[in-house]
Amino acid sequence: MEIVDTEILDEGVSVRTTWSDGRALRFHAIWLRDNALDPETRSPANGQKLVSLTDFPADLHIASASAEQDTMRVVFGPKSKAVTFPADWLLAHAYDSRAVAAQDGWLPDSIDVWDGALEENVPSASLTDLETHEDTLQTWLSAVRRYGVAKTTDGPIEEGALFRVANLFGYVRETNYGRHFDVRTEVNPVNLAYTGLGLQAHTDNPYRDPVPTLQILYCLENSATGGESLVVDGFRVAQRLRDEMPDGFAALSRHCARFEYAGSDGVRLRSRRPMIELAPDGELIAIRFNNRSAAPIVDVPFDDMKLYYEAYRRFSELVDDLDMALSFRLEPGESFIVDNTRVMHARKGYSGAGSRWLQGCYADKDGLLSTLATLEHSRMQSAP
Amino acid sequence: MEIVDTEILDEGVSVRTTWSDGRALRFHAIWLRDNALDPETRSPANGQKLVSLTDFPADLHIASASAEQDTMRVVFGPKSKAVTFPADWLLAHAYDSRAVAAQDGWLPDSIDVWDGALEENVPSASLTDLETHEDTLQTWLSAVRRYGVAKTTDGPIEEGALFRVANLFGYVRETNYGRHFDVRTEVNPVNLAYTGLGLQAHTDNPYRDPVPTLQILYCLENSATGGESLVVDGFRVAQRLRDEMPDGFAALSRHCARFEYAGSDGVRLRSRRPMIELAPDGELIAIRFNNRSAAPIVDVPFDDMKLYYEAYRRFSELVDDLDMALSFRLEPGESFIVDNTRVMHARKGYSGAGSRWLQGCYADKDGLLSTLATLEHSRMQSAP
Repeated sequence: MEIVDTEILDEGVSVRTTWSDGRALRFHAIWLRDNALDPETRSPANGQKLVSLTDFPADLHIASASAEQDTMRVVFGPKSKAVTFPADWLLAHAYDSRAVAAQDGWLPDSIDVWDGALEENVPSASLTDLETHEDTLQTWLSAVRRYGVAKTTDGPIEEGALFRVANLFGYVRETNYGRHFDVRTEVNPVNLAYTGLGLQAHTDNPYRDPVPTLQILYCLENSATGGESLVVDGFRVAQRLRDEMPDGFAALSRHCARFEYAGSDGVRLRSRRPMIELAPDGELIAIRFNNRSAAPIVDVPFDDMKLYYEAYRRFSELVDDLDMALSFRLEPGESFIVDNTRVMHARKGYSGAGSRWLQGCYADKDGLLSTLATLEHSRMQSAP
Repeated sequence: MEIVDTEILDEGVSVRTTWSDGRALRFHAIWLRDNALDPETRSPANGQKLVSLTDFPADLHIASASAEQDTMRVVFGPKSKAVTFPADWLLAHAYDSRAVAAQDGWLPDSIDVWDGALEENVPSASLTDLETHEDTLQTWLSAVRRYGVAKTTDGPIEEGALFRVANLFGYVRETNYGRHFDVRTEVNPVNLAYTGLGLQAHTDNPYRDPVPTLQILYCLENSATGGESLVVDGFRVAQRLRDEMPDGFAALSRHCARFEYAGSDGVRLRSRRPMIELAPDGELIAIRFNNRSAAPIVDVPFDDMKLYYEAYRRFSELVDDLDMALSFRLEPGESFIVDNTRVMHARKGYSGAGSRWLQGCYADKDGLLSTLATLEHSRMQSAP
């Protein structure tokens, strides 16, 4: 698409571009200047910006703007700085076409919510394939971004094998639980995870700020009776709550909950964050849900507390609704990864003669999304 | 203080307690039941909650409530579950006395904002003292929580010494930059940090989500001309902006900025988060400010973009205001730590015959605040 016309508005504060399909997109002088793509503004070597806003004159304005075939040339006053913008780039970054504010709890296109019906299609790949085939890795990482959960299979049955999963995309987040932790029955458990009790679906470590954004659980033994894993899409739960109880969704997102953990010597972790976290523009960005580490909620005014608890209870019921859950039994050498800001995980209670031993570790989404973006970028570049 | 009277309200939905100083505090049945301190509700071993909301009957209510000297005994219907609450505990967790919503940008009592006048009093301690004296460590950690910045002195001049600072309280956050990184002039820098250029005060890695919440910079060489370090309290900057330009403060906190970094092979980091982040109830919880990694801002509607940039510019001017900055020159064997969600750091440009070499690493506040809380708790317990 081409720019067919430009018109300077408001004495150079902004410019209106008219495009070959008839649409009109406005851009501000200061926005264009700040985002100039010339080598004085951005380092050609590493893409970093070389200037700060205070380097621009306070009376910056658009002195002239002219459309050429695939570009727009802008001259900024008062210093007659000339910059050329590719039309494609302007179209991709246009902010004038931004839709009216979406409903609270919206999600970007890269994310699909799911319920138990996903069961037949849990993203899964062999660990060796993931390590050796970039296309397999890209598909799997993309599934983690889209669904917040994926499995690996056919890995070795040996301690520390879980780090091979983390190494696919990023870095382990070490915590007071260590670089990794063993999830099995202990005699004096510091955490209920280290018992045979069933655990309600939960996100890990909501008492930690920042929370670990990814968790990997790798199976080494699983011959006990029970002990199946369940995962639930917290974003789907939140959107169901929103749709059936809008004021309850608002209550859980507009007030902070509190979480705490002090089960081990030398550890007193506390946080004050909402169970449903929204970006300022209403994007659903995180779920924190964990009955075991819930601390008294003291940031909700008295008049809102009844509604808050009704919403909390309804959220909890939806979490427990088996139609919402994916259920699977990890075999030794298999693992699953969850987006710990979104997907809750649970286990059924277990007992009997056999044993159950998982190793777990935390990691972060920044590395995973960066690795995925790099794969997508390099494949896009190499496409015919 | 004692509870002198109780009155069941609204058919058992809540109870009003009247205290010996005359104040009245109400508590809801479901809140009391959820926060019961008995061993069936909370594990006496590790303090974790053993029940979830859905374990309580839907028609839960307060059947009776009676004040005793230091406690209140509540019987919940319909199952006649009896629970005793210490009066002190109720007072400490009362939510009925919650004040009207504070002004956006409020901060908890544990935080003090500062400007350049703090210069004479930068919290500082010798590394060996911090490693060997718990009271020194507690004071220093408390200063990091209060001011978001502190120095260490008298450490060894050897590579990796910065990990001794991280080990005082927690764990290193590994990233694509490694477990640590070297900040010195490089021939082909992947990041402008690795040049002799001055850098505007900034928070590190706003393009990463979650951002590293702490940064340690440890000096190994500093014989170049220039290269002084500056730190600026981003919370103070945000509150100044709020006080002189409330609509600008609202613009920066209600719209997401974008950040990106793709300066190295295999790395394409991006984030979409506000420059001024508030909790849902307006608490100021994070600053993201870094001109070098600012990506085009596309989430601000056209009609708000002019104001947004005016606020962004004013924020940038306040960051550059030398009255706001603490300035110091790190000597070899010294380090400083900053709360990277709050305190921006800068360096003056350097050149000349000498050299400047810092080692940096990231860590997280959860570990630091947990270690501090543990020290505070154990000292409180052992106080006469």
